Parts: sequence; C-alpha cells; structure tokens
Amino acid sequence: MMSALKPRKDLKPVFCPHSIAVIGASRDPNSVGQSIFRNILMGGYRGVLYPVNPRADFILSVKAYPSIMEVPGDVDLAVIVVPAPIVPQVLDECGRKGVKGAIVISAGFKEIGGEGIERERRIKEIADNYGIALIGPNCLGVINTDPAVSMNASFAGRMPQAGRIAFISQSGALCTAVLDYARGQNIGFSKIVSMGNKADVDESDILVALAEDPQTSVILMYLEELTSGRRFFEVARVITSELPQPKPILAIKAGRTPAGARAASSHTGALSGSDEVYEAILAQAGVLRVESVEELFDYAEAFVNQPLPNGPRLAIVTNAGGPAIMAADACMRYGLELANLTETTRSKLKSSLPPAASVHNPIDLIGDAQHDRYELALGMVMKDPNVDMISVLLTPQAMTDVEEVAKAIVRISKADGKPIVATFMGWYDVSPGVKVLNENGIPHYSFPEQAVRALSAMYNFVKWLTRPRTEVKVFTDVNVERAKEIIQAVRASKRRMLREDEALSILEAYNFPLIPWGIASTREEAAKVACEIGFPVAMKILSPDIVHKFDVGGVILNLGDERSVIEAFDRMMQQVSERCPGARIDGVLIQKMATKGIETIIGMKRDQLFGPMLMFGLGGVYVEVLKDVTFRVAPVRELDALRMIRSVRSAAILEGYRGQPPSDIDAIVECICRLSQLALDCEDIEELDVNPLMVFQRGEGATVLDARILLTEA
Amino acid sequence: MMSALKPRKDLKPVFCPHSIAVIGASRDPNSVGQSIFRNILMGGYRGVLYPVNPRADFILSVKAYPSIMEVPGDVDLAVIVVPAPIVPQVLDECGRKGVKGAIVISAGFKEIGGEGIERERRIKEIADNYGIALIGPNCLGVINTDPAVSMNASFAGRMPQAGRIAFISQSGALCTAVLDYARGQNIGFSKIVSMGNKADVDESDILVALAEDPQTSVILMYLEELTSGRRFFEVARVITSELPQPKPILAIKAGRTPAGARAASSHTGALSGSDEVYEAILAQAGVLRVESVEELFDYAEAFVNQPLPNGPRLAIVTNAGGPAIMAADACMRYGLELANLTETTRSKLKSSLPPAASVHNPIDLIGDAQHDRYELALGMVMKDPNVDMISVLLTPQAMTDVEEVAKAIVRISKADGKPIVATFMGWYDVSPGVKVLNENGIPHYSFPEQAVRALSAMYNFVKWLTRPRTEVKVFTDVNVERAKEIIQAVRASKRRMLREDEALSILEAYNFPLIPWGIASTREEAAKVACEIGFPVAMKILSPDIVHKFDVGGVILNLGDERSVIEAFDRMMQQVSERCPGARIDGVLIQKMATKGIETIIGMKRDQLFGPMLMFGLGGVYVEVLKDVTFRVAPVRELDALRMIRSVRSAAILEGYRGQPPSDIDAIVECICRLSQLALDCEDIEELDVNPLMVFQRGEGATVLDARILLTEA
Repeated sequence: MMSALKPRKDLKPVFCPHSIAVIGASRDPNSVGQSIFRNILMGGYRGVLYPVNPRADFILSVKAYPSIMEVPGDVDLAVIVVPAPIVPQVLDECGRKGVKGAIVISAGFKEIGGEGIERERRIKEIADNYGIALIGPNCLGVINTDPAVSMNASFAGRMPQAGRIAFISQSGALCTAVLDYARGQNIGFSKIVSMGNKADVDESDILVALAEDPQTSVILMYLEELTSGRRFFEVARVITSELPQPKPILAIKAGRTPAGARAASSHTGALSGSDEVYEAILAQAGVLRVESVEELFDYAEAFVNQPLPNGPRLAIVTNAGGPAIMAADACMRYGLELANLTETTRSKLKSSLPPAASVHNPIDLIGDAQHDRYELALGMVMKDPNVDMISVLLTPQAMTDVEEVAKAIVRISKADGKPIVATFMGWYDVSPGVKVLNENGIPHYSFPEQAVRALSAMYNFVKWLTRPRTEVKVFTDVNVERAKEIIQAVRASKRRMLREDEALSILEAYNFPLIPWGIASTREEAAKVACEIGFPVAMKILSPDIVHKFDVGGVILNLGDERSVIEAFDRMMQQVSERCPGARIDGVLIQKMATKGIETIIGMKRDQLFGPMLMFGLGGVYVEVLKDVTFRVAPVRELDALRMIRSVRSAAILEGYRGQPPSDIDAIVECICRLSQLALDCEDIEELDVNPLMVFQRGEGATVLDARILLTEA
Repeated sequence: MMSALKPRKDLKPVFCPHSIAVIGASRDPNSVGQSIFRNILMGGYRGVLYPVNPRADFILSVKAYPSIMEVPGDVDLAVIVVPAPIVPQVLDECGRKGVKGAIVISAGFKEIGGEGIERERRIKEIADNYGIALIGPNCLGVINTDPAVSMNASFAGRMPQAGRIAFISQSGALCTAVLDYARGQNIGFSKIVSMGNKADVDESDILVALAEDPQTSVILMYLEELTSGRRFFEVARVITSELPQPKPILAIKAGRTPAGARAASSHTGALSGSDEVYEAILAQAGVLRVESVEELFDYAEAFVNQPLPNGPRLAIVTNAGGPAIMAADACMRYGLELANLTETTRSKLKSSLPPAASVHNPIDLIGDAQHDRYELALGMVMKDPNVDMISVLLTPQAMTDVEEVAKAIVRISKADGKPIVATFMGWYDVSPGVKVLNENGIPHYSFPEQAVRALSAMYNFVKWLTRPRTEVKVFTDVNVERAKEIIQAVRASKRRMLREDEALSILEAYNFPLIPWGIASTREEAAKVACEIGFPVAMKILSPDIVHKFDVGGVILNLGDERSVIEAFDRMMQQVSERCPGARIDGVLIQKMATKGIETIIGMKRDQLFGPMLMFGLGGVYVEVLKDVTFRVAPVRELDALRMIRSVRSAAILEGYRGQPPSDIDAIVECICRLSQLALDCEDIEELDVNPLMVFQRGEGATVLDARILLTEA
C-alpha cells in the first residue's frame, strides 16, 4: 500500500524552494503582483527572491529582471502573476530556465470556459514537458511556516502562526477567511495550499507531499470535487492508517448532489456518483467528513494538542448540573459512553468532596468549587482505568477562580496520556481562563456539545486505526477466461446489455451460488431441462430486444410438471410473437423456483472517478422506498463486506427477529467478495446487478435468482 | 384554547413588584445574601427595597428590619436567602404580612432528598395557603430588564442589556453562563427566570405570564423535565400559534432517556415516556427543539431582529464561491430551497456586474466586490418575487471594504420585509463590519451553515403558523355507555387486561371497522357463528389466564367449512386443557380470515405527564426492527392524524410503489381519530393496541384484526 505514496511530481521546489522568482511582481502597491512579492519578502523567506518585471528596475528596493531568463542564479520556484494569455509563454521560459516548481496565481483559465480551457491544457502540457510541478492556476498561493523556509507565497496578507495543521483548499477566498479566523483562535499552521483549478498538482499530489512532512500532523481539506478520485482514496487510506504515525484527514466535501437526484431510482447505476458515494469513499479511506469550517478546526485542535483516547468512555467534571447533562446527552448522541467510575475513585472522591457533590459521572463539584476541587477530581479520573477521555466544564459562579482552574487543568493534562478538553461557558468572565487553556494546548470549546463532538471525532479515528483488518481474499475457483469469452461474444454481437443467460454464465464462471438453470430453444428441450433441474420451475423468454418480459407474457412461474412446461413454452412463444413481432428470440431460460428466503441486492457500478463501486441493500421496499443501501470501493475485504451488510438500517432483519432464524450473512459476504474480484478482473463490465440474491437461514447459503450486466461503451 | 392562558397564580408580584424585602440580606460581602441585595440595589430597581436581618441595623447603607413583620410598608415580593430549615417559618411570616410573591434562593430541599422533600412540600403548602406565587427553591433568582422595573433579583452579578428575549432555565448555573455569553454577543433580555426546583411556579406558569408580556417576543427555555406536561403542551401551543402575535418558543430538553431503553420493546407501552414522546409533544406544541445553547441564541437573534419569511426560497449573495457552496449545501440539508431568480433580476444583475460575476443564485460578486456591488445585488434580490430570504456572505479579500458592506446591508434590510442574515467569515479583519451588523439588528453568524440553519428555524416556525388547521372531529355514532359498561364488568371481575372479545366490543361500540366476528362456547355454537360470518375463519381461545395462545394450540387459522370448525373446536379444547390445566376458558373467538392488505399498528398509552398519547406505525418489521413509529398527544385533528401517518419513514409503502395501488390512508386517519375520542372519553383505559389494523387499497377501508386493552390500576 505504501507504493501509493510514490510522488507523481516532486513538490519540494514548491514547498521548500531555495530561490523564488515572482514573475509579474509589480510597482503598484495595490496590485496582486506587488502584494505577493511583498508577502514573501516581508514574511522572512529564507532564500533568494527575485522580482521579474520588464518595466521596472527594482521593486520594493530589490533589483528586478526583465525576464526569468536573465535572473542570475538558479530558480527553484516561479510564482506567476502575469495576465493569463502570456502565462504559457512565461511558463515555457521557466522550463527552459530549469525551474521545477510553479504557482500560477493568474485567473483566466478553465473557470472562464472557452479559450481558457485550451489555455489551461497548454500550461499543463508545458509543465509536464519540463517536469514542473504546477499549483493553480487561479489560486491564492502557498504558505509554508517551517522556520527553515518561512514562505508566504500568497496574496493573503498575514503569515499565520506556525503549527501542526496543514490546510488544503479548493477555494482561495476560504483561505483568507480561515487565516483571519485562525488568528482569532490562536490556531497555527504548517502549510496552507490554495489549489485553484488543479491543472497539474491535485489533492492527491499534495497529500503525498504532506504524508511525510514532519511539520504536519493533521490535514484539513476543503474540496468541491476530487480530480484523481481513485488515487485520493488510496493515498488517504495510507496516510490515515498505514503510516508509522498515521495522520488524521478532516475534509469538507461541498457541493452535494441535489437530494432530488436520489429519488429518481434506487439501483446501483442511479445511486452511484452521488453524494452517498462520496460519503462511502471518504469513510472507506479513513477521512473524517465534516460539514463546516467550525467542525474542521474544533476537531483539529483536539487532534493536534491531545493524545488519542484508548476507548469511548468519557468522564465529565463540572461545577454545574445543566451543562453536564447537555454533555451527557451529547455523549450518547455522538456515540461515546459515560464512563462508569471505579469504586476506588468514587470513594476517594466522596471522602474529599463536600457532601452535596456528586461522585458519579458526571462528577459535580458544585457551584462553589475552586481550582483545588477541580485538580483533585481531575487527578482521580485521569488515573481511573475505566476512563478514556475527559471533558471539564465550568460555569462562572461567584466563587469560581477561573484562571486557577485553567492552570489546574493544564497541570493535570501533563500528567497522563488521556485526552482532556474544556468548556468554560460564558464570554468575559471566563476569558482569562480560556487564554491559559489556549496557551497550553488544552482545546477549549464554547459549548459542552462541541467538546464532546471533538472527543467523538478522536474516538472515531481510533476505531479506524484499530479496526480488525483482513487481507483481500483471492478466490482461485474462478474462471476468468470463460467470463471474458462471454463478454467478447457479446461485444461481437454489438450489444452492451447481456442476455440473462449470459449474465448468469459469467456469475457461474465466478462460482456464485446460482439456482439450477438451463436454456432451451424448443418445447422438447424445455421439458428436458426442467426434468433435469427438478420441479417446480420458472420460464423466461430470452431476447435481447425485450425489456419488460413480464408485460408481454415472457415470464411464467411455478410450472409443476413436464406437461405444464410444454404448454407454457407454446403459449409464451405465441404471446411474445404476437406482442413483439420482429423481436429476436433466443429461446427460453428455465430456472428452478426458489424456496423462500430474504431478498437482497448486490451490485457494481464502475465510477468514472473511483473505479468499481459495490452496492448492497435489502430488496424490494428497503431499497425502493426506504433507499436503504450502502456503497464501497472495490476491492473489499471480508470485513468490509460484513460492515457493508451491517451498515444498512434494515440489517437487523438479517439477524433474525421475533423468532425468525438469522440469515446466512457469510454467504452474502462471499458473494460481495466474489463480485469485487469480478469487477477488478473484467473491466469491460460497467454495471452489474444481482437482484435478488435470495438469502436463506444461517448455514443454508444464498442463491442468485436474476442478474443484469451492462458492458462499458466499446 | 385561549383559556389555557388563565393564570394559576398571579406572577405580577414576582416580575413587577412595587416593593421587595430581601430576607437574609447579609453584611458579609462574599455572601449570597449580600450579593442579591446589592444586585437589586445597584441594578437601579424602581421600587422600595428592604433588607431583613435580625442581626444588622443596616446593610449597604439601607436600614434593615429584624423580620418581615416589622417592615413599615407593604411588601409585594420576598427574596428569601435564609438557611433551608427556617424557610418555612419565614415564608409563613411573609404570608401573614400579605406578601404575594416569593423567590426562594436557598438550597436544601428536594434536591438533597430525605427531609428536604418534606420541607419542600411544606413551603408549597404555605405558598398555596396564602396565595403566594413562589419561585424556587434552590434557584439563582429572577431578572426583569423592563426600565419601569429594572430588577436584578438574582445572584448573577451583572444586569443584562434590555432586549426582547426571555430565558427560562431549570439550571441556575446555565443562567450565569448565558448572561456572560450574551454580554459578549450583544444579546439583550426581557426577563430571565431561574426556576430551581419548581415547588410551586413551574414552566407553564411562567409561559402564561410571558404570553402577554409586551417586552418579550421570543422565549428560550432550558428544561430537564416538565412539571406540568399537559398544561405546558396546551399553553405552548397557544403562545406559538393562537395569540394575535404568536411568540416562538425555542427549547433545549436535556436529559434524554438512554438509547438502550428503546431497544427493549417497540409497542406503545414501552416507547411512551421516552425521548421520542418529548420530541413529539414539543413538535405538536409548536416548540422548536434545539440541541445546544448556541442554536438557542443563533435562532433567537434571527427571530428577534428580522421579519418572518413568506416561504423557503433562499438567495445567497457572496464575494467567494466556496462559502456560497457550503451555504447552498446547508440550504438543502435544512429543508430550504435555492431561489430561482426572475429573468428580470438576472438580466439587471448581468448588466450591472462585471462579466466574471455569477448572476444565478448564489450570486457571486467575485473577490474584488466593494459595498456598491453588494448594495446593488441585495437591492435586486430584496425586490425579486421569487426570493423569500437572504443570506449575505463575505470573505475578507484585499479590496473588501468590510465596514461599508455592513452599512449597505443595514440600508437594504430597512427597505423591505424579507429576513436577511450575514456571515462575515474570519475574525479580526471582519470585526468592524460585524460590529455594525450587531448594532443594527442584522443577525451575524461566523459560518455559512449557521446562518442558513437560523433561517430554516424561522421558516419552520412559519410552516407551523400557516399549517392548515381542522377542528377536532366529534364522532356521534359512538356508544360511550356501552364501552363503559364493558369496562365496569371487567373491573367487577378484578381484571385489568381485557379479553379479546371485550376489547373488540369496545372498538365496536366506537364504530371501528372490525372483521366479522363472534364468540361461541360450544362446538355447535362455533359452527353456527362461522356459518353466519362466512368462511374461511380463524378460531382463538378466550381465556383471561392464557397469554401466549398460539403456543398452547389456542389459535387455529384458515378453517374452510363447518366440519373443520367443529373438529378444530374439539382439538383446541383438548390441547388447551392439557397444556394449561386450570385455566379459565370462556369459549372461543371466531373471526373471518382477512384478505391481504398492509399491516399497521395504532395504539394509545396514557402518559403520566401528557395524558393520552397516540401511536402509529407500520406493522411487523417496521415497528419491531426499524422502530419506525410516531406519537401525538390526543386529541388529534384529522390533519394531525394524516401528518402522523406521513411522518413515518415507511409511509411511502402506503402511497403505493412499483405499481402497487395506494392504500386507504383516509381509513387509518378515521381510526386514529376514533381512538383519540375513545382515549378522552374512557379514562379507565391505560393502554390500547390495535395490532394489526389491516389496511386495504384506497376506497376499500381498513379492518381491526386484533386488539389489546389494559385498564388503569383500579
């Protein structure tokens, strides 16, 4: 998996250049061209900086050069701020000069359509020709706070504090807002990258660079769409769980598909590509998806400053009941547990706290608590083996020594490896305490729910890190050649949609459990096949031209003997020829009638961005009315498949309820894993639906009753 | 309905006293007794204030009296801060003095258990004897910012700004936190009430007082439980929708029931009393339930400062794409619609804005927009008939004149009656603009999602106000006497659980649609009843002693003729007598077998707090596995019943899907309304389940197949 981190282009010239040329540096103090030059110069950049401007001798006292070609030394990074039409020419000069990194600030590319699209294609081509790593165009720039570099190559006026958070944004304006917000909140950054149009360097390239960046321990992203979906998935998965020091990735994925699109249909084809798919992808890559900038930084503060918890058990220490109840509610809402304090802790608390205090979790120190009581109680829960994480609450009462309580929290937090977060509710009265917390790496949240939500994000990351992992199972009892032959034959007949018998044959080649079946072209063959299979049977017309078979008399169920089969064959042929004159008839499909089980659906759709996506849901009403389905990127491991099944709301039906026996979930898992392998082996398959996959009780397996396969465009 | 607002006790002496005595006013500057006295004195109270303290001549330069009896003038309100054991005696003196309002700050009552419970009962008794309205005990006090009163009768140090928000809290500490928070956010209050233990005055009494309070236009509540549930429901409903000027009520209901309780069972009995019931009650009373203090004030700011929208169509005006996309996502998430601007607006915008601007909603004025562009675009969307509400976004770009943009928003907001809210993203750079917005009643939110969520809260309130309303339908074809006779007979036999025939008879008396049925005590009677009803029939044993009839052979289905009925009768009697020796056998119930329909469940449970609660859900898996049920307080109107049915996730099944015909929803509505009437008429019924109510296709009605009725304890 670590091979996912192989860089496509080296981003070192962008992040840590020894020398920078600002091409388009300007004498006009209100211009972007001057503001970027000034920001690099005044930001304390530790390298050589050259302004390039054919109409100026110097800019802000620094000697200027008419073109990059005339810059005396080597240049690692070019920041380009010239009008869009001349960017290609400038970039070409950069290439000839040996520049290996470029940040194109200028707008006027893909985002304006028309000629802009061609222009963007051109600069991508030039960058590739010369091996330049190009950020942008149409971006705000790049900031690296590493003291060894100290580069603000952006037109955001202010260099942020150094910190351990990297922020990658597809919106430049959001960077300026975030910088201003972070300043108010004392939040520091390692790197900030405004990606702009992502003509060359995209989100995955930047993630690869940040994977091994020693300054970065948490990565925040604002995304509107992914440029390299599959690669993003693989890179993110490695960063969040395979590195020696995994790094959490928190992402806003904005631009959800209108909810309406969902209503249209519920099959794999229609649901894929939607926001549900992004949701699944991000979850499967270990990326924590959030909804707002506030969440992004709320969680980042906790990840950056506090150790990860070992489990979900939360202790709440408070001087007021109301906020503690809100925290306890949030604890349940966000999937944590209220810690059950040990008897030792409780009795020690009881002997040390006033009688009115509560020594059960939430621990209520009551309104007149001062820092000594907080320190005592926090010290005890820190040591309690039943506690994994701590939320401290304070309301500003008359007796509360806010600043001292904050200092006590800081002291305790240094003692042990459990995460601790604080909520000092209020504004003015609590501000001296909040300041102490901020300065000492104790995440502070204005409201109890926020604090618990941040702890829950940490716990979710821990669950991700510690999830049991299985390898992708490779089935050796499959016949890839046979499947490909069938596909070739369909291609040869210029079709994309497989006939049902063809689809079943492919599944047979992959050793799916199929209900006994056969095909026949005459009444006699039909009778023979039915006798071999065993009664009762169903008969379906085989025709590439008939979609709604049922409506034209092309499906007859529950045929109990040979004679009925013969009669049914004749009746079907007559009805179909009357109702669909001219339709090609390739015979009939005979299938044994299935015994009763629970109907499920499994499916695959090849997504443009992510490759093969697998789908699972319960059949009928559950998928069609309740839209209760789930997605994963292939390949899936057995545990992934099991999680897919368990993640639908209606999963409890498979577990057995009200005396019904539990269903054979293992059989579904196996089918999903076989489908995963088939999807990777046969790239010609665009969509595949098994509907229904009938599942029987535990130990009795599952069986494919019907399948639909669509090939990719030839 | 307005009779709900009849006050139980007059709260005028509490909120607007002409004179106050602080009993327990103290010379110790660190005591609560002094701090309350000081807060009233220094807060500019416009009335006479007397300290009462037997061991002091004066307190803070004001002449003190040894007891309330010796205070020279009349006293409207006593604020009591003496130790709990002497509170009863002090309160009794207040009564004798003619005091009509009391705020008991002292703790040491119900919350400490034991003697505290008895002490609390005593003070409630004394208060009732003298007609005193008593707030507390164990509370922070009461604040009224009305300039004609200006009373801070609390130990929260700071008098808040005057404003139009009333805050009622069951947590005193939360009041101090909220006061401090509000000061930071420039939020003003009309009244603040810390309710404490609610020995006498409870949430409903305070709501009644606030209903007609001209200073209050929005009511915020923090509740841990309701003391007068049914009354709260009725009062809140009037305040939120029947007043000439309805007032929104926003509430945190903390202390959710552990999720685990839910898993236990899914029938009416088990689910009632849970958080789901509170959820239903609050919704049905028009109370907007929120999860956090942040939401409470986010929404209140919008309600207090902006007009209500006429519909859900939101226009977004921005200088940056990213935040606008986040706002658009939130728009969908919170149930609003992106407004479709008129052609006129679009063409006017096009001719006035630079070519790179987007004139579709979201309207993107692009990064270099100054206040003139904002003012122009805002003016146009204000006038656009397709727009109901506006969210303005700003990110601090180099060119942005933040303060001037804020002033432009203020100018536009005064022009028309559409709500407008703002998000200036950032911190320092945007703060001059945020200040202008705050000072001029434009709600400001740090993040785009928050702004949209607040608008959505307003729209939800508008939907509530403008909901179609029907009267409670009174069925005249019911036989109350007959139902009561049956209940009396069951009571006479010392049972609480009705036999099935008794339950069916009660439903018959209320004219529910029943499947034809009869009872029989002999094989011949059974045959006769079956012939009258028509075949096929089901037979069930009637016995008050047998719960699991099926398990003992007490249920036989699908009897097709007379002979089978006779055989079945004999077989059943034999099996039951073998397996349940000694069980009383009252004969058998014969029911016609139902044709296939969709199984639903309707139920009723008498809640201690709220009275009869009605329940609806689809049967089988939907209620048992998916817990897909909904509750309402009786009485329900027809539209309430319809909304109940539509509010379950599985409702789409009743609408017909995949070619299935739609079900007879009107028939369910009628059954729910009949159940509502029965619940109100027969208070002896504790629980009632109709399971299943089989529903047929539209026009073909529904039918009760089985019913279970439990009476209240005698």
